Amino acid sequence: MAAPGLMDKLVSLCKRRGFVFQSSEIYGGLGSVWDYGPLGTELKRNIKDRWWHSMVRARDDIEGLDAAILMHPKVWEASGHVSGFTDPLVDCKTCKSRFRADKLEDAQCPQKPSKHPGEHSTCQLTEPRMFNLMFKTFMGPVEESASVVYLRPETAQGIYVNYLNVLQSSRQKIPFGIAQIGKAFRNEITPGNFIFRTREFEQMEMQYFVKPGEDAEWFERWRVLRMAWHQELGLKPEKLRWHQHAQNELAHYARAAYDIEYEFPFGWQEIEGVHNRGNFDLTNHQNASGKKLEYFDQAANSRYLPEIVETSAGADRVTLTVMVDAYREEVVEGETRTVLGFNPSIAPIKVAVLPLVNKDAMPEMATALFNDLRPRFACFYDDGGAIGRRYRRMDEVGTPFCITVDGQSAEDQSVTVRHRDTMGQERVAITQVAAYLAERIVP
Amino acid sequence: MAAPGLMDKLVSLCKRRGFVFQSSEIYGGLGSVWDYGPLGTELKRNIKDRWWHSMVRARDDIEGLDAAILMHPKVWEASGHVSGFTDPLVDCKTCKSRFRADKLEDAQCPQKPSKHPGEHSTCQLTEPRMFNLMFKTFMGPVEESASVVYLRPETAQGIYVNYLNVLQSSRQKIPFGIAQIGKAFRNEITPGNFIFRTREFEQMEMQYFVKPGEDAEWFERWRVLRMAWHQELGLKPEKLRWHQHAQNELAHYARAAYDIEYEFPFGWQEIEGVHNRGNFDLTNHQNASGKKLEYFDQAANSRYLPEIVETSAGADRVTLTVMVDAYREEVVEGETRTVLGFNPSIAPIKVAVLPLVNKDAMPEMATALFNDLRPRFACFYDDGGAIGRRYRRMDEVGTPFCITVDGQSAEDQSVTVRHRDTMGQERVAITQVAAYLAERIVP
Repeated sequence: MAAPGLMDKLVSLCKRRGFVFQSSEIYGGLGSVWDYGPLGTELKRNIKDRWWHSMVRARDDIEGLDAAILMHPKVWEASGHVSGFTDPLVDCKTCKSRFRADKLEDAQCPQKPSKHPGEHSTCQLTEPRMFNLMFKTFMGPVEESASVVYLRPETAQGIYVNYLNVLQSSRQKIPFGIAQIGKAFRNEITPGNFIFRTREFEQMEMQYFVKPGEDAEWFERWRVLRMAWHQELGLKPEKLRWHQHAQNELAHYARAAYDIEYEFPFGWQEIEGVHNRGNFDLTNHQNASGKKLEYFDQAANSRYLPEIVETSAGADRVTLTVMVDAYREEVVEGETRTVLGFNPSIAPIKVAVLPLVNKDAMPEMATALFNDLRPRFACFYDDGGAIGRRYRRMDEVGTPFCITVDGQSAEDQSVTVRHRDTMGQERVAITQVAAYLAERIVP
Repeated sequence: MAAPGLMDKLVSLCKRRGFVFQSSEIYGGLGSVWDYGPLGTELKRNIKDRWWHSMVRARDDIEGLDAAILMHPKVWEASGHVSGFTDPLVDCKTCKSRFRADKLEDAQCPQKPSKHPGEHSTCQLTEPRMFNLMFKTFMGPVEESASVVYLRPETAQGIYVNYLNVLQSSRQKIPFGIAQIGKAFRNEITPGNFIFRTREFEQMEMQYFVKPGEDAEWFERWRVLRMAWHQELGLKPEKLRWHQHAQNELAHYARAAYDIEYEFPFGWQEIEGVHNRGNFDLTNHQNASGKKLEYFDQAANSRYLPEIVETSAGADRVTLTVMVDAYREEVVEGETRTVLGFNPSIAPIKVAVLPLVNKDAMPEMATALFNDLRPRFACFYDDGGAIGRRYRRMDEVGTPFCITVDGQSAEDQSVTVRHRDTMGQERVAITQVAAYLAERIVP
């Protein structure tokens, strides 16, 4: 079981060390909106780059896309979001608060917080009404219904409406995929758990287009690949599991769906979904747009609407997962050290370069080594305070290697490399440091 | 002078080869919103990565940030955007159209397109009214004034409100900077020129915090650095110039401002601004939030509000600039070839691997080389059609190197490397190809 209070400690560390800040904090914050600080920005970038590399650059059969957040409103009519992307809400006539009708047991009556809405004698709840989760705005100078556009609630539709353009320009053949990283927005009534559920979030989605009848086979293949990706990221296997959507849980578009779940301190929660969407989306867009979206199979001389297997991960959720999974506290020589045990490939800082003391040519040697390493590795130079404190500061932000220039360095041109996880140290020749690190920081 | 029709040709190439597609094209498109296709996504990624590397990773004095698009609405009151970020609009009572009052000469009367609004005898224009350019939406379940939030019209404010958090967590000292890449939104009445002016766009901004009185000196330094960056990107120096804002052009926040302009087919236009903002922004946020935003200078034992030098570039504009600048047509042996002469470091595809013919072990050798190169370089394998046609296809998307496996390759383990710009070819040993490319594709 996860330690109680871990989330509080993590939120505090994230602020103190510059991973995640509350948005607009000087104005009291904005509900469930968060900003990434210097180290969080690098961590999330590394995770997104790793996903992009494995999904797009290392494969011949997947093309990248970067569609805009604003799309034609008819996209969301065709996709079913305008009519169906809703939560049921109830109002309390006494206190004027609004709640999700299907989550009343998670809420508190504002007048009597020990009770759920509806339980307090004064509560007067209305019948549930459906509330659309899409943020809407107006494009152009006039605020009228004709100018309503939505902030996309998912990136997937940007892929579907571009699928023929991508197919034709890239000369791909089915089976092939289109991958995209981008922001999406949902006006959630009950966001929460730090950056787990936020109203503005970033998705890493891939839609794989296959021949009708081959969807089940590709669905299984993508399940295997995606679970392997999370494990290669360094997540503990025992904290990962599959959740299969039962027939009555399936979204309207899905033939089959599995979630990859992680065991957070707040329970098992989805971090990625793998969905067999069949030809639901392309059928809808073909009907609504009047444009033929069929694929022409030259070899078989036949036309068909492809079926789609989707892999949909949250970049913010994976970033949170990586931090929760990496966080540990250990007692070392009577003191507690906090460690973020990141996989070196995603650590925001790979190497710290530290002169043991600020004299005897140590700063000069350390600076020279720092400048030498920096073009290849994310490096940090620190000459402030006792060496033990500097090691602890690097442990706390997940830096896998600390290199210390000490009294012996000038004599034999060697340094110590100190390992975050074992705290073990070894001497390495300065000329060998870059190769030593490159071997241990495998992308 | 740029060739007439160049923009039309570029827009067409962008669609055909997968650089840029019209958003929601199957629904007739959405005004001035564009999606990046496979090659455009890589090109823009490479430009953004290059900026991030030069501004954040290669420097000790600049920290990265990734603030959310949604911010507390008080941010935009304090910044002056709620009251002042407006365009003057007039309505025509006859045709019910709306125009920018200060750009009437660029518009057409809908009833008499040969005339400007106001010139046709039936035109009945109202007095100008101010129209705010921020997109607004509602957060939470109730659409009321208390829940209005805005899509940020610039990323800069996300940096200002986080400046103390970044300073404290990173242990930087002034002078230091904060850099950010992210989307911003402006409800422009007259967007246009392809991806030059769009309602949704991506900024690459850096705010540099300096000691009062040192602003002018840092302003000059950043001007030099930013112009150099664009030139290193490969832009032709004669197409770049400075435009100094005259006193009456200066934005309300600026002490001094220079634009880096590029000569597009549609005229000289801004691609980046360098602004001396003084302490305008921090003063406003300190007053509006009631939070002290002063910096404590330990060495001098004094407190002050820093002054700010901003460098603000458009990622979409730079992407367009790079394509316009790289585009050329040449007559070669009686045929026109189209070339995008990208700097190799930002080309979406670095290397094409081509078997001369699909027999005699050439495909096997080419595939082996392709697999060997792919982890290091963005590669494309093409075995379709005559070799000359394949070279042309790569010229058109800016691929700097084509490697051809031919009849001699099996005999002496060598290949030809063909250069995009000169069309010259040279033989290189297969074992040397990776080193040959690495030398010529300098990041």
